[in-house]
Amino acid sequence: MINAKLPKMFYGGDYNPDQWPKEIWQEDMRLFQLAGIDMATVGVFSWALSQPDEATYNFDWLDEVLDLLADNRVYACLATSTAAVPAWMAKRYPDVLRVDFEGHKRKFGGRHNFCPNSPTYQHYSKLMARKLAERYHDHPALAVWHVNNEYGGHCYCENCEKQFRVWLKKRYGSLDQVNQVWNTSFWGHTFYDWDEIVLPNRLSEHMNGDRTNFQGITLDYYRFMSDSLLSCYQGEYDEIKAITPHIMITTNLMGTFKPLDYFKWAKQMDIVSWDNYPRFDTPMSMIAMRHDLMRGLKDGMPFMLMEQTPSQQNWQPYNSLKRPGVMRLWSYQAVARGADTVMFFQLRRSVGACEKYHGAVIEHVGHENTRVFRECAELGRELTLLGDTLLDSKIQSKIAILFDWDNWWAVEMSSGPSIDLKYVDQVHRYYEAFYAQNIQVDLIGVDTPLAGYDIVIAPVLYMLKPGYAAKVKTFVERGGSFVTTFFSGIVNENDLVTLGGYPGELRELLGIWAEEIDALFPDMNNQIVMNETYGELKGAYNCGLLCDLIHSEGAEVLATYGSDFYQGMPVLTRNRFGKGDAWYVASSPDKQFMQDLVRELCGQKGIQPVVQGPEGVEATTRTKDGKNYLFLMNHNNSAQKLDLGETSGRNLLDGNRYGGVIQIKAKDVLILEV
Amino acid sequence: MINAKLPKMFYGGDYNPDQWPKEIWQEDMRLFQLAGIDMATVGVFSWALSQPDEATYNFDWLDEVLDLLADNRVYACLATSTAAVPAWMAKRYPDVLRVDFEGHKRKFGGRHNFCPNSPTYQHYSKLMARKLAERYHDHPALAVWHVNNEYGGHCYCENCEKQFRVWLKKRYGSLDQVNQVWNTSFWGHTFYDWDEIVLPNRLSEHMNGDRTNFQGITLDYYRFMSDSLLSCYQGEYDEIKAITPHIMITTNLMGTFKPLDYFKWAKQMDIVSWDNYPRFDTPMSMIAMRHDLMRGLKDGMPFMLMEQTPSQQNWQPYNSLKRPGVMRLWSYQAVARGADTVMFFQLRRSVGACEKYHGAVIEHVGHENTRVFRECAELGRELTLLGDTLLDSKIQSKIAILFDWDNWWAVEMSSGPSIDLKYVDQVHRYYEAFYAQNIQVDLIGVDTPLAGYDIVIAPVLYMLKPGYAAKVKTFVERGGSFVTTFFSGIVNENDLVTLGGYPGELRELLGIWAEEIDALFPDMNNQIVMNETYGELKGAYNCGLLCDLIHSEGAEVLATYGSDFYQGMPVLTRNRFGKGDAWYVASSPDKQFMQDLVRELCGQKGIQPVVQGPEGVEATTRTKDGKNYLFLMNHNNSAQKLDLGETSGRNLLDGNRYGGVIQIKAKDVLILEV
Amino acid sequence: MINAKLPKMFYGGDYNPDQWPKEIWQEDMRLFQLAGIDMATVGVFSWALSQPDEATYNFDWLDEVLDLLADNRVYACLATSTAAVPAWMAKRYPDVLRVDFEGHKRKFGGRHNFCPNSPTYQHYSKLMARKLAERYHDHPALAVWHVNNEYGGHCYCENCEKQFRVWLKKRYGSLDQVNQVWNTSFWGHTFYDWDEIVLPNRLSEHMNGDRTNFQGITLDYYRFMSDSLLSCYQGEYDEIKAITPHIMITTNLMGTFKPLDYFKWAKQMDIVSWDNYPRFDTPMSMIAMRHDLMRGLKDGMPFMLMEQTPSQQNWQPYNSLKRPGVMRLWSYQAVARGADTVMFFQLRRSVGACEKYHGAVIEHVGHENTRVFRECAELGRELTLLGDTLLDSKIQSKIAILFDWDNWWAVEMSSGPSIDLKYVDQVHRYYEAFYAQNIQVDLIGVDTPLAGYDIVIAPVLYMLKPGYAAKVKTFVERGGSFVTTFFSGIVNENDLVTLGGYPGELRELLGIWAEEIDALFPDMNNQIVMNETYGELKGAYNCGLLCDLIHSEGAEVLATYGSDFYQGMPVLTRNRFGKGDAWYVASSPDKQFMQDLVRELCGQKGIQPVVQGPEGVEATTRTKDGKNYLFLMNHNNSAQKLDLGETSGRNLLDGNRYGGVIQIKAKDVLILEV
Repeated sequence: MINAKLPKMFYGGDYNPDQWPKEIWQEDMRLFQLAGIDMATVGVFSWALSQPDEATYNFDWLDEVLDLLADNRVYACLATSTAAVPAWMAKRYPDVLRVDFEGHKRKFGGRHNFCPNSPTYQHYSKLMARKLAERYHDHPALAVWHVNNEYGGHCYCENCEKQFRVWLKKRYGSLDQVNQVWNTSFWGHTFYDWDEIVLPNRLSEHMNGDRTNFQGITLDYYRFMSDSLLSCYQGEYDEIKAITPHIMITTNLMGTFKPLDYFKWAKQMDIVSWDNYPRFDTPMSMIAMRHDLMRGLKDGMPFMLMEQTPSQQNWQPYNSLKRPGVMRLWSYQAVARGADTVMFFQLRRSVGACEKYHGAVIEHVGHENTRVFRECAELGRELTLLGDTLLDSKIQSKIAILFDWDNWWAVEMSSGPSIDLKYVDQVHRYYEAFYAQNIQVDLIGVDTPLAGYDIVIAPVLYMLKPGYAAKVKTFVERGGSFVTTFFSGIVNENDLVTLGGYPGELRELLGIWAEEIDALFPDMNNQIVMNETYGELKGAYNCGLLCDLIHSEGAEVLATYGSDFYQGMPVLTRNRFGKGDAWYVASSPDKQFMQDLVRELCGQKGIQPVVQGPEGVEATTRTKDGKNYLFLMNHNNSAQKLDLGETSGRNLLDGNRYGGVIQIKAKDVLILEV
Repeated sequence: MINAKLPKMFYGGDYNPDQWPKEIWQEDMRLFQLAGIDMATVGVFSWALSQPDEATYNFDWLDEVLDLLADNRVYACLATSTAAVPAWMAKRYPDVLRVDFEGHKRKFGGRHNFCPNSPTYQHYSKLMARKLAERYHDHPALAVWHVNNEYGGHCYCENCEKQFRVWLKKRYGSLDQVNQVWNTSFWGHTFYDWDEIVLPNRLSEHMNGDRTNFQGITLDYYRFMSDSLLSCYQGEYDEIKAITPHIMITTNLMGTFKPLDYFKWAKQMDIVSWDNYPRFDTPMSMIAMRHDLMRGLKDGMPFMLMEQTPSQQNWQPYNSLKRPGVMRLWSYQAVARGADTVMFFQLRRSVGACEKYHGAVIEHVGHENTRVFRECAELGRELTLLGDTLLDSKIQSKIAILFDWDNWWAVEMSSGPSIDLKYVDQVHRYYEAFYAQNIQVDLIGVDTPLAGYDIVIAPVLYMLKPGYAAKVKTFVERGGSFVTTFFSGIVNENDLVTLGGYPGELRELLGIWAEEIDALFPDMNNQIVMNETYGELKGAYNCGLLCDLIHSEGAEVLATYGSDFYQGMPVLTRNRFGKGDAWYVASSPDKQFMQDLVRELCGQKGIQPVVQGPEGVEATTRTKDGKNYLFLMNHNNSAQKLDLGETSGRNLLDGNRYGGVIQIKAKDVLILEV
Repeated sequence: MINAKLPKMFYGGDYNPDQWPKEIWQEDMRLFQLAGIDMATVGVFSWALSQPDEATYNFDWLDEVLDLLADNRVYACLATSTAAVPAWMAKRYPDVLRVDFEGHKRKFGGRHNFCPNSPTYQHYSKLMARKLAERYHDHPALAVWHVNNEYGGHCYCENCEKQFRVWLKKRYGSLDQVNQVWNTSFWGHTFYDWDEIVLPNRLSEHMNGDRTNFQGITLDYYRFMSDSLLSCYQGEYDEIKAITPHIMITTNLMGTFKPLDYFKWAKQMDIVSWDNYPRFDTPMSMIAMRHDLMRGLKDGMPFMLMEQTPSQQNWQPYNSLKRPGVMRLWSYQAVARGADTVMFFQLRRSVGACEKYHGAVIEHVGHENTRVFRECAELGRELTLLGDTLLDSKIQSKIAILFDWDNWWAVEMSSGPSIDLKYVDQVHRYYEAFYAQNIQVDLIGVDTPLAGYDIVIAPVLYMLKPGYAAKVKTFVERGGSFVTTFFSGIVNENDLVTLGGYPGELRELLGIWAEEIDALFPDMNNQIVMNETYGELKGAYNCGLLCDLIHSEGAEVLATYGSDFYQGMPVLTRNRFGKGDAWYVASSPDKQFMQDLVRELCGQKGIQPVVQGPEGVEATTRTKDGKNYLFLMNHNNSAQKLDLGETSGRNLLDGNRYGGVIQIKAKDVLILEV
């Protein structure tokens, strides 16, 4: 349980009384009560207020806020305020400012604006964390610690450059080793002195964005930068932990956020929390996948939904309103997939600067008589009703999809074979097929044990880290089904090709050799032609993007290409290996193939959907103390009928029993205890 | 009258004899006579020639040019030459060079290349103005002063940064006040020392272009930069004015040019002048609107058409030729809307550098036997014929459309709700409806008195400056009709939201409350469904972009939304207030609605079109000494019939009388004295 | 002959044993033998390896490589390794690093990363060339010298700025002359001191890319930069030549590569070599044109095909595989157009960094059992079979198309009249019409003598260099046919307009005057309406882009515009001049017109196609010792029939005789000795 003081889902969000006169605070408390709000994230951007210069700390305002919250039975998710450095610090200690990708030293401005390797920043951010912990360790309002905010970004300053060399020394020991893993003999890049190494940006190895001359250098730089920020987090964490060992510490993550290796981060977090901000064109299945990924970061442990907008965002091109019911529906979707809190950015809309058109529970009009407030208050009422029923419940799955940040970085910085190859999209293509059938899936990292799963899918497993091939082999030998795709097994953890034939270390397991890789233009496709009907798989499907030209070396050829000069070569293979099997999908198939493949794989393992419903009705199950909680969520704009079969149960939200053929209203949610 | 020495419309343009050997000068004079040219703008880019170093001034060449002009009865629009600093100055005094938006210190090159806060630039530019005034105050050719050229652009250098702090101190008095109006408690941006304030660019608060974290900072920076350039202008103006108090001083503006607040500038100009360079896809109504805006800058006083191309431009992607007759037609359009001069860039085409493919009266071939020269000469003949008939005549309108630079800046730097919201486009949508019906409109600023108008339209009046709401209320109370739109009344002059419900200070006047603002995707729309026919307004119309979700608080609901979850909520309201009424258009309507709305508003006030003609026949009236001059301009490629009704008069251009049903040739112009 | 040691076409490519452990080297040798490879380009990027610091040189590895090659009868194309500076040099001597277009000093990274005006670079690169020549001048493997690699790029550092002033002083003598040719009186840019001149980039005269305020400055900068890099080449060349006077020296060019004036470069090269990397959408005719251009650089002398990919590239957006047969087909296309070597990048695929997904003869799998290797080995077998038959044979043409780098630069930096005017495209439009009819054409430079040609075509001859108009006149007077187009004869070599009427110095020859130039929008066109059928030209054609409005001054008007206000004005003229004629095509015509024009021109001169075949069957003839070698290449995906008429001969590739109506398989090649 996140915090035993309040045995229910925390409900609330970011709250910035420091941006408001005190006369507003009392009104806020009244409105929080009305809305059932019991958690406020405070102090996220208050560094300049709490510390006006090197020597002065001023926490009076925060004392007052926390006391007020406590008086009103609102708990604090207390932020350490280190995500934006004060202007005075930027002025006096320019080392806190970043240098950007183009090599420009930044000036004061924005947020997430600190260099993670700045000694000044490290010193004062840790000090701030300590001072807060010392002051509030026993405060009755304190429920959770919120370190910094949405860590991210890169810095290319001299301090980072120097620390990069230290990081490399630690990782590789010798410069010879660095030269080797980066393959610096290419283009005569051999380094004879550590100081010759520079950071990879537009002034050195990069053309633009991810396009680099040396993938190995950039890969290590990305790791180093993720680690640098993590070490800032860790610094604050350690200060706090020493003082309040029993309070959970988190920092808010951002789903499929590329710059940080969240699996590595999650190890250092007591609980995962994240901010759910889909773009205007994000499919529901992608939001679901992000929830599952966040849950997977700590092996299925529930997470905090730290931020979402109650109504609209401000930084999209077109900031449409969440339609009536959608905020509630999406809140429950988070819960259905592992969230144990429902929180917003933000509780009161700001009066100025760039987020003033971001939705809030309390809008600019300032009172409770708005559609948005009413919807928030209704959800608050329901969450109170739910109490601790769902807290700490788990989601169980026999299927895992691998997600790996290093692989993501490597795939997308590859020069060739196709600029259209996007890692998250490929993972999502597989995820979506399960999602559409309401089959529960875990998103796992390379360190996650495979033993509990029946099926492991690793789309575009381009980079094989040391030992991972062996881990997969063991999994298959013992009876598991493993599925991977084109452009897999190509490189090691330094983006050096595994010589001797693709897919490298997976060749034996998969029983194939990929001789060549063809890239298709966006308007071209090929076909997956089944040799004969194979369970759910039949006839022909379209495929595209990349086509591996593979030869079977023992694998059963289930389908071959339908056209081009490699017509007749295998495109779908299955290799029996020990008690299990290993599948290879040599191109990027259409949705129908995905659906059929998923059906076939699950069929073989006897894995059932949670519920088979009409399109757009999402279902998951959370389990606790032997009880199952079936979530049914209708994303459609119209009511849908649904056959629950023999399943029935009481809906926690209205107390009624549901079973057999039921109807679920547009945008509505049921949580059946079954 | 611009200059009493020549009681006719000045005709001519930019003339750069300093770029040509003297043997050409005499030939120029011959060709000027042939073309009826009597004004030459000289010295625009001659600083390096007139001042080869700090101590040396060389005006011999200019003496000669001015004498030659005087001998040939050509008047000088004498430029101060300060729009491009000499190379020697850039080399020796780098403070004259700008720092760009990305933070790069520029090197010598281009034009408009000076930092407005450079002490060196300020010193030498004023000195140049003084020296010119001292030398030529009595020269017979001198007719008008032309300070600098097309002021514009931003600078982000250290001098500007320091001056920005001074400007802020003057405007706000204290740092506390700065912190408050910029809402720096957001993201912990509190400043404790003036020197902590930095300029808002890509290195500090900006993402790209207008996208900023702190609208308040950027807004003040834009004001400061407009003021900084204005103070350069003012410096030169004062030097000249002291010596030649009776000669008009101007600088050439550029229509809807975003960086400078021209209403503020116009106050410091004796006469407005501007350069008319439509893009290849600019509609005629937009050109017309810019003329009206330029006329509005000084409350209807005639302006100078300082530049236009006689044939083609060079900096468009596709520089098509002005078709035969178009140069004449567009010249008269300027006159029809308030111009008292017709001038070109340029009189002779340059032989090298980036403007050599820009059209000129005298083309590279060098003689008079070209289509372009013949058209110019014919127009010259006509202008001579017109004499002083039209000089100082005025345009009368009962309708005003508000245009405000601060509002423009604020609307387009807003983060949310839609990137497609463009201020000039929205103003133009209303303007266009009047233009299409030949109803005369004034473009006015926030300082313009409203008393003389029947209708005031303020599209997207997002920012309400102090006192403006009261001014509008008084206008309506006394019987005026006021129209405003979605996204109005939201912020004060610092882009801080007026709390308590949109549209803020206009809420009482409009009798509505806007609870939410929905942003539509580009391919979506909603409908304006009239409750019943209301005069010209009937049935249903399309609308889109933004939809305010409003509630009537007393206003009459004329139309409601036709779809989406806010179907049935008001979209068009009218609130009686005192003797007048206030309209609210809660979304961005289609053209048909605009036409009908304009017809309805004018009908209620008894305002008539100048002439009702076929599409593409533009009509305006200038008035002087009790006489009306009706301009009829056919922009179509074919002749058009037109019923003048009882109106008739002599066409100043051919001496014939026209009345009843007349025919007007393709691209032709009539100016009837009626 | 490139090198008499091996009287056959060298076959091989880039080989980087320095990137591989020695155990691989022996395997490489085995595979080279299998593939018939007899040339390896070695040492291209080995500077850091061969010279680990200022004082140390280490050639042991290269000794070993060259000995190994010699032992295996593989010749070396020995590179000087100066295309990428070592990291230690970048660290200790920052003057070797470039400053980019935006003004950023670069850090170590990439390749082609040296400032050509760096004293350090110049010193050490020449020293490296000398040391290599001293060490290997008698090595049995040494066949050709390969200086640097793919020279290119620009630098804007202070050293370059200073050298630019020196270069200008040498070219123009005085600052007055510089001011004049750059027309600096425009925008008051007059320079009073050499040090006031700065390089033209984004910080000075450029907006973006080619868009500049002063074409004259940028033109000279482009010349200077091409010369600066050439002088680096020349420095190495001289060192080597002094020691091995009989070994050919080359550097690999890149076809229509804009930054370097290859006609000037070729004069300093013993033999031209180039790298053929078409983009995925490059038409075959463009590849053919580039081969012809490379052959034209040294007046028809055979060239080396230095690089091409055996299978796929890595830096395209979509790197599709070369389909079976295509590598062979394109190799022979190069030979058919003048190549005397067939070489690849590269022989073994690299294991890491950005080119690891670029195709190679030996793929990552490492053995010979791949499609790609088999195709390479088969081609190797054929080339061995061909022996020296084709070596030094020539291609004969009566038609020349002018190609001029200065003109290219000037046309595309012009501000107006149309951004869509691209020089290479316009040249290609004419070339393509000949290509489609299998009529042999030479691409020539302005220094190439015209006497041997019947037809000279100079598309968009915008810039006329001193004496060129006279040269063309002499050509026509003596009976030649000259064709030029719109936007010709406009400027001199400094981009200053030739006053007095377009097309300037060509006006008399062409018998026309171009009064105006209209630019059409992309979706617009006009028509070329033939006055009457004129040989192959009949009816009407479409045209667009630009339309010169011309008047005949003696030329016969063959066609007039079909629409717009210049309908009826001439669009195609022919002027008899001496014994020849001069044609003017006043707009950019459609393909049909091009085909008919080419047919008409050739018909008049009795020039015949090599072979008339179906579309996609390319034919050329190489000639040697009185024998003709007819190349027939089928680019289609299906077999084609072809009537050789009376031509017949033995196919060098299969020994069979072919004549009359023959069939040629998809992607197949015949080389008939006829």
